[in-house]
Amino acid sequence: MIAAADEDRLARAALTCVAEPGDAAMGTLLRTCAPAEIIAALTEGRTPAGSGRIAGLDRALRRWAARLGTAPTTITLDAWHRDGIRLLCPGDPGWPGQLDVLGDARPWALWLRGSADLRYACLRSVSIVGTRAATSYGEHVCLEMSAALAERGWAVVSGGAFGIDKCAHRGALTAEGITIAVLPSGVDEPYPLAHHVLFDAIAAHGVLVSEWPPGRPPTRPGFLVRNRVIAALSRGTVVVEAALRSGALNTARHARDQCRPLMAVPGPVTSPASAGCHQIIRDWGGVCVTGARDVLEHLAFPGDDLPARLSGPVLPRDALDPDSRRVLEAVPARAGRGPARIAVSAGVDFDTVLRCLGGLAAGGFVERCNRGWRLRKQA
Amino acid sequence: MIAAADEDRLARAALTCVAEPGDAAMGTLLRTCAPAEIIAALTEGRTPAGSGRIAGLDRALRRWAARLGTAPTTITLDAWHRDGIRLLCPGDPGWPGQLDVLGDARPWALWLRGSADLRYACLRSVSIVGTRAATSYGEHVCLEMSAALAERGWAVVSGGAFGIDKCAHRGALTAEGITIAVLPSGVDEPYPLAHHVLFDAIAAHGVLVSEWPPGRPPTRPGFLVRNRVIAALSRGTVVVEAALRSGALNTARHARDQCRPLMAVPGPVTSPASAGCHQIIRDWGGVCVTGARDVLEHLAFPGDDLPARLSGPVLPRDALDPDSRRVLEAVPARAGRGPARIAVSAGVDFDTVLRCLGGLAAGGFVERCNRGWRLRKQA
Repeated sequence: MIAAADEDRLARAALTCVAEPGDAAMGTLLRTCAPAEIIAALTEGRTPAGSGRIAGLDRALRRWAARLGTAPTTITLDAWHRDGIRLLCPGDPGWPGQLDVLGDARPWALWLRGSADLRYACLRSVSIVGTRAATSYGEHVCLEMSAALAERGWAVVSGGAFGIDKCAHRGALTAEGITIAVLPSGVDEPYPLAHHVLFDAIAAHGVLVSEWPPGRPPTRPGFLVRNRVIAALSRGTVVVEAALRSGALNTARHARDQCRPLMAVPGPVTSPASAGCHQIIRDWGGVCVTGARDVLEHLAFPGDDLPARLSGPVLPRDALDPDSRRVLEAVPARAGRGPARIAVSAGVDFDTVLRCLGGLAAGGFVERCNRGWRLRKQA
Repeated sequence: MIAAADEDRLARAALTCVAEPGDAAMGTLLRTCAPAEIIAALTEGRTPAGSGRIAGLDRALRRWAARLGTAPTTITLDAWHRDGIRLLCPGDPGWPGQLDVLGDARPWALWLRGSADLRYACLRSVSIVGTRAATSYGEHVCLEMSAALAERGWAVVSGGAFGIDKCAHRGALTAEGITIAVLPSGVDEPYPLAHHVLFDAIAAHGVLVSEWPPGRPPTRPGFLVRNRVIAALSRGTVVVEAALRSGALNTARHARDQCRPLMAVPGPVTSPASAGCHQIIRDWGGVCVTGARDVLEHLAFPGDDLPARLSGPVLPRDALDPDSRRVLEAVPARAGRGPARIAVSAGVDFDTVLRCLGGLAAGGFVERCNRGWRLRKQA
């Protein structure tokens, strides 16, 4: 027999298989019904208890029931877990609270693959998105901006696509920073396939995120649905290049609708690839940003003295999980210390140290230096 | 003996010789003293009657008196007039009323050379300014924008300088539109000398304007003082390219301080020549414009349906001077008519027809067509 918490996790894993992300009927249903009750009702062919009156619920139930066979068992979950794929559910300690801005369209759960702690990373994160048909100008600006933000401890969120997205991830990786790819497909087969080297690097130093279960290929509507998560995961969104009908404008619209800071990089007015950026600045109230400095000025936390000085942590120490607290205790103030020695001092294993250091860096507690890691000076 | 009005004009001509434009003491003095009284007092070495208490007035009077010898006589004025140089004074029917936004810093008078009617032209005018060190990108964008605005009957105001200014004038001339150069030197020797062909073309189809009397070479502070007139003469200012310390930012600051619409053209963030434009958009509240269409959307008069439809006149017919009214009566509604035939119908000479047609076009009453001129369709 599985515990209630496990039952809930298994049910949420099933939800990601039976209902498309953003499905309005499911969102409404989850207000009043527990995931396990929904799955149980689907299995038994009945209406979930306490579902109330939801428009189109009967049709939705038939739609979901038809996909019940794709739901994972605990055995499947364990197999995925051995492949490094984690399930993150609302209420989990690592759940990024800012996703709650999505209301009923909040992901049922997230599938993750990678070493970074999503919640910590997202505390200081910027989405950098743009057209797949990027120009060399856009790619250059994107790489520079992303690397500079990552160097200052900001995680870079993007969609893993060709063009600007790829440069956003690459720039952050070059600066040894954390980057997050929110995918339109399962995290085991991230789309596009041509980026498999990039995705492996992201999994090693950052995290791959998907609302779809492992094995699920991308669908056309999925790309747009996914964009709301890119916007919601970060503190602000920067569009580097976008034509007037680019999908990046969809992400920008989500950022605006979520009342998150929206920024765009200007470009030549003669370049169609910048026309969407100019529209964002001119008509949508987007801020004109010319580099990482402008982005930081716009997103900096109160008390941050950016970018001349490094900035303080955004979470109190008390809010850290026990492992991170132990690792933080073991990080020296001035001279750096390598992760292996930190692991010994903290009494945790090497992998845990790496994971915790990433989160602590994103949270503004520690920083890399020549000889390893040290405490970040507080402003 | 000369009439009182002539005496006032002669005195204002003298003021432009003795006091630098924008001289705060002179501006204050003119609140309470007539120009003729000021010149009389300077000649007689006394304080002007009714001058009240003005800080530094004694020193200013000595400064002005020292330059009294440069003031023109009626004979000089007549000679200049024969050379096509006109004096325009506040209160003249052709005085552009929007200069009054300058308050005490309003020009004492303006020296003009050229065929266009300054007041009419300025009713629908845009200042287009920018760096002398323009890139080919900036020059291209400027030429296109200026020509497109001129084609729609908007006069283009600029400073006659190298780079963006030159392209602003050239673009308007290419479109057979009206362009106004506000000079930092006398209109008989417009600065820079290398632009003499351009200035001749402006005089032929537009107008050269200066606060300094004929013969006066440019001075370094004069360039900045002149910029306030560029901003004040137009309904809005567009900066096409400007480095962070460009003089064009000074014009932009004047536009902002005068509460006139301020616009800037974005460019590559990697181009220092666009950095000032991005600053205007990001920090000064300037509007991001990518072409003539954006400028028109921002400046259009209420009721204008731009740029798809042509726009209506901004002055009632009753406000036209008698010559313009006569010329307007002679312009046909549909089929075009050439200026020579219009001159015969209107009973005025050919030069007057050309001058009036320019003003009527800028005012939105008439438009050019294949076969000459016709009435502009009203929205």
